[in-house]
Amino acid sequence: MPRRPPERFAFDALQVDPCADQPLYRQLEQRLRDAILAGQLKPAERVPSTRRLAADLQVSRNTVSLAYAQLLSEGYLEAEVGSGTRVSRHLPDDLLQASPAPRTAASAAVGPRLSRRGSSVAALGQWITLPGVPPRPFRPHVPALDLFPRHIWRRLSQRRLRRMPWYEWGQVPPLGYPPLREAIAEYLGISRGVRCTAEQVVIVAGAQQAIDFVARLLLDDGEAAWIEEPGYTPARHLFELAGVEVVPVPVDGDGLSVAAGEQLRADARLAYVTPSCQWPTGLTMSLPRRLELLEWARCQSAWILEDDYNGEYRYDGRPLPAIHGLADDGHVIYMGTFSKVMFPGLRLGYLVVPDQLREAFRAARWMADRHSPPFEQAILTDFINEGHFARHLRRMRTACAARQQALVDALDRHLGGAVEVVGRESGLQLLVHAGAGMDARRLTTAAQKAGVEFHPLSVYAAAEPEREGMILGFAAYREEQIEQAVQDWAVRLERG
Amino acid sequence: MPRRPPERFAFDALQVDPCADQPLYRQLEQRLRDAILAGQLKPAERVPSTRRLAADLQVSRNTVSLAYAQLLSEGYLEAEVGSGTRVSRHLPDDLLQASPAPRTAASAAVGPRLSRRGSSVAALGQWITLPGVPPRPFRPHVPALDLFPRHIWRRLSQRRLRRMPWYEWGQVPPLGYPPLREAIAEYLGISRGVRCTAEQVVIVAGAQQAIDFVARLLLDDGEAAWIEEPGYTPARHLFELAGVEVVPVPVDGDGLSVAAGEQLRADARLAYVTPSCQWPTGLTMSLPRRLELLEWARCQSAWILEDDYNGEYRYDGRPLPAIHGLADDGHVIYMGTFSKVMFPGLRLGYLVVPDQLREAFRAARWMADRHSPPFEQAILTDFINEGHFARHLRRMRTACAARQQALVDALDRHLGGAVEVVGRESGLQLLVHAGAGMDARRLTTAAQKAGVEFHPLSVYAAAEPEREGMILGFAAYREEQIEQAVQDWAVRLERG
Repeated sequence: MPRRPPERFAFDALQVDPCADQPLYRQLEQRLRDAILAGQLKPAERVPSTRRLAADLQVSRNTVSLAYAQLLSEGYLEAEVGSGTRVSRHLPDDLLQASPAPRTAASAAVGPRLSRRGSSVAALGQWITLPGVPPRPFRPHVPALDLFPRHIWRRLSQRRLRRMPWYEWGQVPPLGYPPLREAIAEYLGISRGVRCTAEQVVIVAGAQQAIDFVARLLLDDGEAAWIEEPGYTPARHLFELAGVEVVPVPVDGDGLSVAAGEQLRADARLAYVTPSCQWPTGLTMSLPRRLELLEWARCQSAWILEDDYNGEYRYDGRPLPAIHGLADDGHVIYMGTFSKVMFPGLRLGYLVVPDQLREAFRAARWMADRHSPPFEQAILTDFINEGHFARHLRRMRTACAARQQALVDALDRHLGGAVEVVGRESGLQLLVHAGAGMDARRLTTAAQKAGVEFHPLSVYAAAEPEREGMILGFAAYREEQIEQAVQDWAVRLERG
Repeated sequence: MPRRPPERFAFDALQVDPCADQPLYRQLEQRLRDAILAGQLKPAERVPSTRRLAADLQVSRNTVSLAYAQLLSEGYLEAEVGSGTRVSRHLPDDLLQASPAPRTAASAAVGPRLSRRGSSVAALGQWITLPGVPPRPFRPHVPALDLFPRHIWRRLSQRRLRRMPWYEWGQVPPLGYPPLREAIAEYLGISRGVRCTAEQVVIVAGAQQAIDFVARLLLDDGEAAWIEEPGYTPARHLFELAGVEVVPVPVDGDGLSVAAGEQLRADARLAYVTPSCQWPTGLTMSLPRRLELLEWARCQSAWILEDDYNGEYRYDGRPLPAIHGLADDGHVIYMGTFSKVMFPGLRLGYLVVPDQLREAFRAARWMADRHSPPFEQAILTDFINEGHFARHLRRMRTACAARQQALVDALDRHLGGAVEVVGRESGLQLLVHAGAGMDARRLTTAAQKAGVEFHPLSVYAAAEPEREGMILGFAAYREEQIEQAVQDWAVRLERG
């Protein structure tokens, strides 16, 4: 372990109060600013890493990140690559001579600044997974791009560009190109057990925008939302940015534990779930659990946001019906994306919303960015209506099942008891843990040395998970690439 | 004037206090809810129109709209097409028997509801200008779509779809496709006097998203922003949704009056301006005024958001340099869009931001919707780099000048002294007032009867303008269409 430099300021004695009205990160930010202004923290003095200060103060790492981000943007702190964060060496004298002053006065001295919201957003930059092209095994979130019938897309695109009336190069309605909404409603009815009319379908620029709209339109500051733990971290961030109190609710073999949620925060206003393919475990929510969740939503007059992002990829048995199909009383908002079955560059997803919410989503889209480009929407409509989508989906399901099998076989052959695979039922990724007697750290270090990409399970958990795991995406890689990558990994592991 | 139905409840005696902490619309909403719960307002009783209640209480119409929208979403009010808004006829009994209760308890009884934010957004739905195809003269905001070289776009698109590596069908960086950022930086330097590097260019999904990001990243709740009066209403809405206090600052012949702004609210954190082509007057901000604005921003450590949406369309003399080019000290954020020079369906615009803001915009885009589709970005890059953009721009400038001239001539020929034209220097629209001795109402009624579209000036003003005006877009219409539309209008006017 690296030696910690001596510190004069007792960071672990900073007082923050979880019961106070002010959010923890603002309290922490204020304490640190005061300490700098009072001269207790000197110019150039190091501050602890976010991980360490979070542990010392028993707060989340995000709390510390947000506080640091604000102070960085105001110029109180400065960061250097490789040497961490420290108090600015060039604090203006008048700042230091002033007694702890109202924040606006102090920050005016260091130039225009970000808003608090802006600092919170900027702090999330650390989570952006850089594209880095081409992707290498086993980076998750990449679908089987190599199998997409690009020649068909090209042909359809050419026809549309030739035939589209000139005014359709202008605007389309914010809720989406009407024929596309029709096509999606029909597809969802046939394939996903979602009963809806085209009027209930809202086209969005992908899952991210869908969750962002739901968080902001349905929840107010300080209201609570259940999020699966472990779960889809980007969704957690969006709810947090919307000022929502995020309640991580543990997932068991049946899916999100409604009983645990009720104990933690029964009066939450929304539950965000991935029932057909829980991210990142790949498990499916059982039917009794779906009904239990629905019952809770009805009693509490709460919403369920059902994210069916990988609903198409199910390898064992018949797909379970979507929760949306179990209820038609307006408690369930259903969402899906074309990023996983077509390609992410399409930037198209959809929501199915109860009638009374349509106007809010229409206005939200208009305010955010008007509408998605008409071309992608029109070409996708043809792709669906002319049967290419159904054919492509069948091919993808077979291919991804084979790639999953190749990964499982390779892990078994080369890494034997070193890994333990969880949740093979669905999805485009596998969660693996270190097997009994294998040190998880050794396993991940070997992967890194072999150039094998993965996401650690802890990235998708609000609290440190009991067992760390590795999330391996397999969809984008050919069987021989998969075999080779696992082999390289095993070689590195053997060498120690 | 229609007869007002008798009312028992004294709406004009409702008390709202502009000095209270709570926003006016929340106060109004609470007063109305209390009156319903206390039985002072009976089921089925009508409430006044937003316009009338706003006038009675001396508040903005938006305040009343927001309050009504929330009560509609909670089920306290109901709206019927053609018969206005009334208290719900089917209020649950337990709601009426309860004394004014905490809001959450009351609304839980009527099902899941929108958040306050959601209600505010939904209330903006009334501002959505329906596409309605094809557009008719003189609907504004529509560029000369008929002149776009669609065959070139088709050819470039086909080449890109064929040659793009498969992984580029996946993700591109949130700040934009790097070659497009390069191309835009070069174009802005040559044509718009904006000195920037490609690293400072941020690709967005159009002007709306650009303003939304700026409002949320740079301003906190309750901070103030200057907006031109009259000005671009959608920008005002975005700042309001972000919780910003919007300060309408009058525009005179030199542009936004900095002196007036300083009197109204010197400590604003941002000024949103359209200096090259003021929306909707079409006037240009003078150089001394630009320098004065910059001086204010420096003293106050405030931001200038320079929206150059129509900077390319200037018909008189040499374009003035962008404010961005006058300063390189990081106070100016520059934005532009391809919607007016290419076509709105492209959904691409850009910001030029100081280096220290780049990370915040990167994270904001990632959180909002990841990135714009790679195809439009790649094809546009080729369109610019291969010289098509510059050629198209020259052709558009000539064509739009001719269409403007055709409109001015037709107005002169057929409507003689009935109209008075303002601001012919730039842009794709004309502001006209009723001429001396002509009743503005008669003029607009005749236009409506003739099927002539326009936007009333008051739509773009926070307060009722001293003189109502009509905004006529001319870019999308051929000269003979323009002539015919004005002729029809004149005929209707003559018939009375």
